[in-house]
Amino acid sequence: MYSELLLPDLKLMLSEEDNTALREFCSVLNEVVIAEVLDGLEADEAWRVLKSCDVERQAEIFEHFPPRLQMEMVASIDRSHLSKIVEAMSPDDRIDLLEHLEEDQIEQLLPLIAQAERDEIRKMLSYPEYSCGSIMTTEYASLPENITVREALDRVRQQAPERETIYYLYVVDESRHLHGVITLRELVLARPHQLLATVMRRDFVSVRVTDDQEVAANEIARFDLLAIPVLDEDSRLVGIITHDDVLDVVREEAEEDAYRQSAMEPLEFDYLETPLLTIAWKRGVWLLVLAAVAVVTATILKAFDGASKRHDFLVLFLPLVLASGGNTGSQSATLVIRAMALSGSARRERMRMARREFLTGLLLGTGLALFAFAAARGLFGLTIAQGSVVAGTVILVVTMGTVIGALLPLLFDRLGMDPAVMSNPLIASLSDIIGTFIYFSVAILVLEWL
Amino acid sequence: MYSELLLPDLKLMLSEEDNTALREFCSVLNEVVIAEVLDGLEADEAWRVLKSCDVERQAEIFEHFPPRLQMEMVASIDRSHLSKIVEAMSPDDRIDLLEHLEEDQIEQLLPLIAQAERDEIRKMLSYPEYSCGSIMTTEYASLPENITVREALDRVRQQAPERETIYYLYVVDESRHLHGVITLRELVLARPHQLLATVMRRDFVSVRVTDDQEVAANEIARFDLLAIPVLDEDSRLVGIITHDDVLDVVREEAEEDAYRQSAMEPLEFDYLETPLLTIAWKRGVWLLVLAAVAVVTATILKAFDGASKRHDFLVLFLPLVLASGGNTGSQSATLVIRAMALSGSARRERMRMARREFLTGLLLGTGLALFAFAAARGLFGLTIAQGSVVAGTVILVVTMGTVIGALLPLLFDRLGMDPAVMSNPLIASLSDIIGTFIYFSVAILVLEWL
Repeated sequence: MYSELLLPDLKLMLSEEDNTALREFCSVLNEVVIAEVLDGLEADEAWRVLKSCDVERQAEIFEHFPPRLQMEMVASIDRSHLSKIVEAMSPDDRIDLLEHLEEDQIEQLLPLIAQAERDEIRKMLSYPEYSCGSIMTTEYASLPENITVREALDRVRQQAPERETIYYLYVVDESRHLHGVITLRELVLARPHQLLATVMRRDFVSVRVTDDQEVAANEIARFDLLAIPVLDEDSRLVGIITHDDVLDVVREEAEEDAYRQSAMEPLEFDYLETPLLTIAWKRGVWLLVLAAVAVVTATILKAFDGASKRHDFLVLFLPLVLASGGNTGSQSATLVIRAMALSGSARRERMRMARREFLTGLLLGTGLALFAFAAARGLFGLTIAQGSVVAGTVILVVTMGTVIGALLPLLFDRLGMDPAVMSNPLIASLSDIIGTFIYFSVAILVLEWL
Repeated sequence: MYSELLLPDLKLMLSEEDNTALREFCSVLNEVVIAEVLDGLEADEAWRVLKSCDVERQAEIFEHFPPRLQMEMVASIDRSHLSKIVEAMSPDDRIDLLEHLEEDQIEQLLPLIAQAERDEIRKMLSYPEYSCGSIMTTEYASLPENITVREALDRVRQQAPERETIYYLYVVDESRHLHGVITLRELVLARPHQLLATVMRRDFVSVRVTDDQEVAANEIARFDLLAIPVLDEDSRLVGIITHDDVLDVVREEAEEDAYRQSAMEPLEFDYLETPLLTIAWKRGVWLLVLAAVAVVTATILKAFDGASKRHDFLVLFLPLVLASGGNTGSQSATLVIRAMALSGSARRERMRMARREFLTGLLLGTGLALFAFAAARGLFGLTIAQGSVVAGTVILVVTMGTVIGALLPLLFDRLGMDPAVMSNPLIASLSDIIGTFIYFSVAILVLEWL
């Protein structure tokens, strides 16, 4: 990558203590690229580079560091410098940083920060994690209603340097109630003498400060917005969430879903930046739960001890039978969880999903049963009765797998819990228990009772 | 949802053939909301609503229909109407639609479309699926270099109604080579008499028309952009990709990853909109592959027939041993595939990932082995030797699971294949084969040879 090519040059500048070159480096390049290059240095070296520019620029670059480097810098920069950088950061990036810090680190830092920023920080930290309030920025451009388009454009020009975006302009009254929204494009196209109140849009979408961040992401995606206004409980404008923050949210949530799907707690930092013990812990908890479920399966196997001795082919096909149920169940869980995330969960749709999964399960089970029957007869020389036990069980177990794969997430959602807890391995393990029971019951029924 | 509340009113207007009300409905509401309401109607009813407004508005609403409804409308609207709507659609949405159509449907439609649009469509259809060219729009705002800021603003005002965005302005020469980029915000802040060439940015990021769409998504996310320019092989500007298209790309790719992770081919439409047989097919193919792998496991179990008869406790713990390996392997595959997607795949990092997974595997294996030993002794009354067989195997199988879970995706990536083919169930099935072999080998070694 481009940024890796710059690293040797930068290291040379550092070893020669060439401050002019360092200042040049920090001012000419894009802050995103600078942050990527500095990520290849130790925290104290990175700080020596940052020191060469002013605090505004330091904050711009610092905002783009990965969380791990931010943490290391916080530990190595002295507190008065750090407080100035934090003061200069944009409100949403600042809150991201503070949310990664320990309580006592925050308390040491806050007294050094100017009153206005400090109050805002306390306010924003009070919003729940993953809420719209926790990812919004307070640097939006606002206008009063009773001015002309020309006056509005003048005011936008004044506000522009300080605002996260000036492409959406929010029209508010003195108590910051939001009356309308107008885009800069509409403003540029409107006639200069028109009143803002007559050209602004009054039917805008907004989110509440306590809404989950996914609500903002969904609305921004639904209407292709650049930003969405965030209102407090009294419908006053308190901030905006911009398209780039939403893109980050969507990417993060996708990461988390992928981890949950494989029965892991989501990682806070990148994989290679997370300590090995942390990763082991986030995986180990779920692995233990799954192992405990497997012990239940062992108990059922023990109960059918006799049958498995009398019919020794049963053991051979145990992995195939259990895997078929588990795999189909995992697919069902994934389909249902994704469908719920997309379309919400109207009751009628839930019933339809469950019914569809049942039918698909029957269909897939029949297909796999034919394959299992052929393999049992052709490759292992089983009798027709024995082959039928395997095939019949596959149909039952696959159908059961799809049904529990579909129903458990739906049930969890109904109970107000996160359906993603029903990870693929958990569905598979639960399906193992029932599958084992079905397998041996069918065997005893067909081979001994009939 | 809001749109569901409007449906009864709309049905009443339709049954009363109240065209004035229908026209009002189409003009007052947001096109996204209208499309959502119409999604609750049959295609021919939806068309009766659309007919009440002009073709520009029809296209705006049509663009927001879900693909299934678009297909149904294509089948039910007469071709001359359809060609006018297609002509009026924005270039990127138009290509999305055409990519869903059959070859002969496109060939019937194209002759009815105006020459200019037709040429553009042929050009855009020639770009590979999932390339930047296939999702870009050609409606960008461009400016010549040698004008002043005031002139530039005037030209932007003229172009505004026709362009997808006017917030990023692209400075090109007569042969459309891209020389610079300037944002509307920068233009508004610049002094009116300055020359555009002196205020525009020359170090902009861009993508190639043949790049994968994920490249555009990554660059837009990396630099928090509103749009990214798309260049052809001669570095001429041919289109732009905007933030909202990238958001769609990221969401789609997350969907696909989730499906692949559970061993399913991605769906083209929403779950409830996809025919049951299509879903069964997309799942069944992989289920058959997995069942075939399970037959190999059965063969290995058959080879160890004697051992499992002599030591009947072995069967009880087979699901636990195999699940432990499979689950840990799935986690590893997920971690490695996600890490590669995020950070690219530098060789040094790959080695680090593989080494980390090996260590994590040892650690997790030891933890699970202690649990398995306790369960084997405490709940099933196994001897120390028997318990040690189970525990020792768990360590080996879990470590083996993490190693193949990490290595197979890395290997696939190295071979230039999609690492996501190594789905969690496939890793688990492959780990079953080796796990079974290890389990019985360890048992024979410990219980019979030592």
